[in-house]
Amino acid sequence: MTDGHRSGCPINLSLEVFGDRWSLLILRDMIFGGRRHFRELLTGSLEGIASNILASRLKALVQLGMLTKQADPTHKQKVVYSLTEPAIELVPVMAALGDWGSRWLPVSDELSIRARVLADGGPQLWERFMAELREEQLGIPAGPPPGGMTVRERLQDAYAAVATRAG
Amino acid sequence: MTDGHRSGCPINLSLEVFGDRWSLLILRDMIFGGRRHFRELLTGSLEGIASNILASRLKALVQLGMLTKQADPTHKQKVVYSLTEPAIELVPVMAALGDWGSRWLPVSDELSIRARVLADGGPQLWERFMAELREEQLGIPAGPPPGGMTVRERLQDAYAAVATRAG
Repeated sequence: MTDGHRSGCPINLSLEVFGDRWSLLILRDMIFGGRRHFRELLTGSLEGIASNILASRLKALVQLGMLTKQADPTHKQKVVYSLTEPAIELVPVMAALGDWGSRWLPVSDELSIRARVLADGGPQLWERFMAELREEQLGIPAGPPPGGMTVRERLQDAYAAVATRAG
Repeated sequence: MTDGHRSGCPINLSLEVFGDRWSLLILRDMIFGGRRHFRELLTGSLEGIASNILASRLKALVQLGMLTKQADPTHKQKVVYSLTEPAIELVPVMAALGDWGSRWLPVSDELSIRARVLADGGPQLWERFMAELREEQLGIPAGPPPGGMTVRERLQDAYAAVATRAG
């Protein structure tokens, strides 16, 4: 940690950015869940995060350049968060992590189906998903989705199909 | 955290396995550095890890099924650690994380060259690397390396070339 040379390792520096699990889970919910407001993140799928922790992690993610924060006069929550380009490019990391977790850990069927769809889709699907995130969060046009469905819709559809079966 | 359903998310569960950065860095040094003994890990590239922390993390990784621990009568350090199959299958996760870090974080040239070689090699190179790790750590024959060099040798060669230039 005090060794400047060694701390230049990309894996080590990546972990410093996601110094705690909450940061990566916030990014997960923004990427896959499309959540952009404080209350959506607080009451959404984040596993029991406390309000003060969420506030401090969002602040840290803005400082790290992973999120930007803007006024949102169109929403009852007055602040909207957007993913930056480096945050959007975490899609392949999330895909690799989700794929590994769904193969080796006691995940639930409902929650691992999206990881499997993403892994099966490979780099081509991740690129398309990132293009759609750039459109949604950064305003960069992605063009119409192939087959008429966005990647997030395809992931949600796969989830809904499994959840219905399980229910 | 107390929500059993939600904690079945593969990304969340993955983070529980690497609950702290040390665990993933230990696995990094075993995978890329071939370190398998306590003292090699302590005095190697781990960024200033304390001896008691290393001991507790190794114990946790064994309990999680990521490492096994055997007697090693051939080495002055009497205990050797081996990566398990799930730990070996972290190669694509490490590749994605290293690739992302080397693009977006202030990494050093020497330390990011391996991440770039790994990213450029893609799934085919990762598969070969995993086969070689299975041979080294689990005794499962991998066959001779294509071109006569193992993946770890190729990564080390790329590193040495950049380090020489930098020096």
